[in-house]
Amino acid sequence: MEKYALGLDFGTLSVRALLVEIFTGREVAVSAFDYPHSVMDKALPNGKELPDDWALQHPEDYLEGLVYVIRDILKTSGVCADKIVGIGVDFTACTMLATNSAGVPLCLLSEYQAEPHAYAKLWKHHAAQKEATLINAVAEKRSEAFLARYGGKVSSEWLIPKIWQVLNEAPEIYEAAKYFIEAGDWLVWQLTGRQTRNACAAGYKGMWHKQSGYPSKEFFRELDPRLENIVSEKLNCPVYPLGSKAGEVTQKICELTGLLPHTAVAVANVDAHVTVPACKITAPGQMLAIIGTSTCHMMADVKEHNVRGISGVVEDGILPGYFGYEAGQACVGDHFAWFVNNCCPGEYSLLAKERGISLHQLLSEKAALLYPGENGLVALDWYNGNRSVLVDAELSGMLLGMTLATKPEELYRALLEATAYGTRKILDTFRDSGIPVNELTASGGIPQKNAFAMQVYADVLKIPIRIGGSAQAAALGSAIFGAVAAGKEGGGHAGIFEAAQAMGKLDAKVYLPDEKRSLVYDALYAEYERLHDYFGRGENDVMKRLKAIRRTAR
Amino acid sequence: MEKYALGLDFGTLSVRALLVEIFTGREVAVSAFDYPHSVMDKALPNGKELPDDWALQHPEDYLEGLVYVIRDILKTSGVCADKIVGIGVDFTACTMLATNSAGVPLCLLSEYQAEPHAYAKLWKHHAAQKEATLINAVAEKRSEAFLARYGGKVSSEWLIPKIWQVLNEAPEIYEAAKYFIEAGDWLVWQLTGRQTRNACAAGYKGMWHKQSGYPSKEFFRELDPRLENIVSEKLNCPVYPLGSKAGEVTQKICELTGLLPHTAVAVANVDAHVTVPACKITAPGQMLAIIGTSTCHMMADVKEHNVRGISGVVEDGILPGYFGYEAGQACVGDHFAWFVNNCCPGEYSLLAKERGISLHQLLSEKAALLYPGENGLVALDWYNGNRSVLVDAELSGMLLGMTLATKPEELYRALLEATAYGTRKILDTFRDSGIPVNELTASGGIPQKNAFAMQVYADVLKIPIRIGGSAQAAALGSAIFGAVAAGKEGGGHAGIFEAAQAMGKLDAKVYLPDEKRSLVYDALYAEYERLHDYFGRGENDVMKRLKAIRRTAR
Repeated sequence: MEKYALGLDFGTLSVRALLVEIFTGREVAVSAFDYPHSVMDKALPNGKELPDDWALQHPEDYLEGLVYVIRDILKTSGVCADKIVGIGVDFTACTMLATNSAGVPLCLLSEYQAEPHAYAKLWKHHAAQKEATLINAVAEKRSEAFLARYGGKVSSEWLIPKIWQVLNEAPEIYEAAKYFIEAGDWLVWQLTGRQTRNACAAGYKGMWHKQSGYPSKEFFRELDPRLENIVSEKLNCPVYPLGSKAGEVTQKICELTGLLPHTAVAVANVDAHVTVPACKITAPGQMLAIIGTSTCHMMADVKEHNVRGISGVVEDGILPGYFGYEAGQACVGDHFAWFVNNCCPGEYSLLAKERGISLHQLLSEKAALLYPGENGLVALDWYNGNRSVLVDAELSGMLLGMTLATKPEELYRALLEATAYGTRKILDTFRDSGIPVNELTASGGIPQKNAFAMQVYADVLKIPIRIGGSAQAAALGSAIFGAVAAGKEGGGHAGIFEAAQAMGKLDAKVYLPDEKRSLVYDALYAEYERLHDYFGRGENDVMKRLKAIRRTAR
Repeated sequence: MEKYALGLDFGTLSVRALLVEIFTGREVAVSAFDYPHSVMDKALPNGKELPDDWALQHPEDYLEGLVYVIRDILKTSGVCADKIVGIGVDFTACTMLATNSAGVPLCLLSEYQAEPHAYAKLWKHHAAQKEATLINAVAEKRSEAFLARYGGKVSSEWLIPKIWQVLNEAPEIYEAAKYFIEAGDWLVWQLTGRQTRNACAAGYKGMWHKQSGYPSKEFFRELDPRLENIVSEKLNCPVYPLGSKAGEVTQKICELTGLLPHTAVAVANVDAHVTVPACKITAPGQMLAIIGTSTCHMMADVKEHNVRGISGVVEDGILPGYFGYEAGQACVGDHFAWFVNNCCPGEYSLLAKERGISLHQLLSEKAALLYPGENGLVALDWYNGNRSVLVDAELSGMLLGMTLATKPEELYRALLEATAYGTRKILDTFRDSGIPVNELTASGGIPQKNAFAMQVYADVLKIPIRIGGSAQAAALGSAIFGAVAAGKEGGGHAGIFEAAQAMGKLDAKVYLPDEKRSLVYDALYAEYERLHDYFGRGENDVMKRLKAIRRTAR
């Protein structure tokens, strides 16, 4: 008898659901729901204005979406709910909220409806930079071991800076909060009636460590005496490995959605990380790159290494039994979008329109006709700063080598190549730290749509590139974890590796490096590396000085 | 009684004539004639194909144009020919040709009509690079003193490389040539029946020096034994100071044009240099910048200094009694044209069209709204290599500081600012060599049309900027030299200084630096300088390596 698992992927603007047959990986039905409040970065629902750098969400949207997509999936698939053995949930992270002891978000209580800090803070809420900067300074002063696990820097996007901002700006909300919790864990709580925390978000975003737990009381006290007991007072919940069963769906959820009792629910996961098994990656040496507006890189290894400039290393954070590594490039698709919107001549727009293709497609076609090195250009892919391996938001972009004969497609290709060099730099840094990278799997819209880009990546990286096979890779990943949570005895899979093999998907196409082209790229990458270090490692801080001048220009 | 002088300005595509009243400077009539054969860079008139890098002209075009514009001027002005006291001629340089002893260009002789080397080689004929490279190598080996006068490098555009190319590729033409001569000098010969050479072209393009003459026989012999006697055999003619009277118009010219006998003709001059007195510049400390697709800078000083990276220093080469200095920027207006053609989004094109203005005007308007430093960018203006002060054609462009918020007008402004920084670098180099630069006069289309650009220049250079007042500045300059050739006794002017005061023209508008903006530009220029030296003086030769990779890419 066929069995199914349901994956729920909570993104920035919508939730997507995917129903998957657990032994074949067949994708049976998909559904999506846009959050009614979307991202609140200008005002609260009552019209109250928000400061710059804020980004909130409304937790009612998550619940409304949850109910809608599950009912929709059951209806459109025609699958009986009794054949759904497990549910997995992934979420953007760190997206966090404050709740009372019953798990009710404070913003749903009438007395806090007008208080911005009572709402969910989205991952890209950047208003806790002051707190992050202080955390880094104190951690550095105290030589806290956790810093090295985060490439030397804690981000303002993470849990502790966000909580501390609440304490600083709305102490009554801090006081009223029984829990501060990742939105993914909160959603699993709503599904199962039981609070859990997942090792992935806790490790990558919550500064939690499998062996040593959260940072020490002494550290928190030095940050702020009021934070001394933050762990016992506000984060008091065990952290579970990925694929653990958090519980089963509650009666209330069954009534709302049409699911049946005893359906297993996995602990939550992070949207990027959940994609690893969805791309059949189950062993060290295989990197996953999720390439979109930015790129997120994930790797597993058998040991814990300190890798300079990565976003984090977490034991069991991606695959059980392995140390999971995360790195990132801040600007990839954004790069190309900037170029198309700002640098592409009118005649190209007309040509693309005439042919009924996008400017990206036109530029890719033209750029694909060039040989490596023929554009005579090298660029630095730092239009949005550099995440890995320099961890420096103050860096900016560079284009070099232009002549009067330089064409738009040559610039476009240079920007693409720069992102490939940036990836190679990350790979090299992993390798230099003793972590092999033998193969790359690319997931996301760009890898699926742009063969030219993937061939450039293969030629630059000099390793085979595989492409994720699902258009809903994150939701597929969550379904995989749902099948694991059900377990063999519950009609699901015994473990993540088995589930990934059965349900994960790759395209048939593999991009192999071309030796001759790679040779040229070796030479060009050497130029990139030299400029990378010159501008990125302090030899010439012109980018920072230009930003400082810009800030005081008016 | 009013008196007039006639200026003839032979440019790349056309000859322009201007009739000027010599005591008031009033411009009475203007005429222009496009060369029928234009620039021959693909084929000879008989269809014979030309190699890459060739650029020829047909000397018949010069004569046809000469006759046409003079007749046209006489007709449209209604001025009696007896009131025209003098004629001046300026020409592009080094534009050169081979003639027989009577001054007939070899290409006009039937036996040589099919021989490319028998035609006039235009200034931008670049096929003698091999010869120029050898000249530089031999001169350096022999520590020839003349090298320092040319900033360390002889250009492939100059007279000797062009002659040597003839010898190497068409020895029969070299043999048949009694003279190799600048086209300007040749035209004056046609007007007067007497051969002269002018100190400006001979000095800047012919490696001639007022004290020591042409390079030595020994030098030429070491280049090529057949060149040993090139000076006595092929260049045998005295060199005259600027403003000298070459002679009077011949009977034949009178018949052809309507001019009258006894009209004085000045020795020829170079089109850029002749503009100096046209802008009333008659003393040291005042630089002229002719800003067009590229920029040519001219300066006078009382002493001969070695200035690193200038195009040349020639005694009496610009103004009698002074050492004339020339420098250049290879890419100015070309820069902006590249941007408009390759980097300007379709929506801007539509907006400009809607408003009936050029894209340049639209971008300038938008860029003018920005404060210095607000674009956060710095660029290197080397899209066409660097003429002064690095003298390196292998350098290329750079843009640095882009973010995802960078707009086209910010990039456009950065390119403009880079050309201003490039000018400042030239000014600083002159000053470091002991030559003061207190004021800049800008001539050409960009200065007259673009107030925003000139204000940026004033703010970057921190000196007042005046604007040339004539739309036909070169032809006005030639008229000035024509009036000087006539002399006081001939109804003209006694000397160039007097003539420049009476006939030269400046706009009323003066651009003054703004102290606050200059302060920001001091900081930005420091960044430019550092990158200029890093990429331009050998610390990181990435630009050259990229060009080398590009050349072998296919």
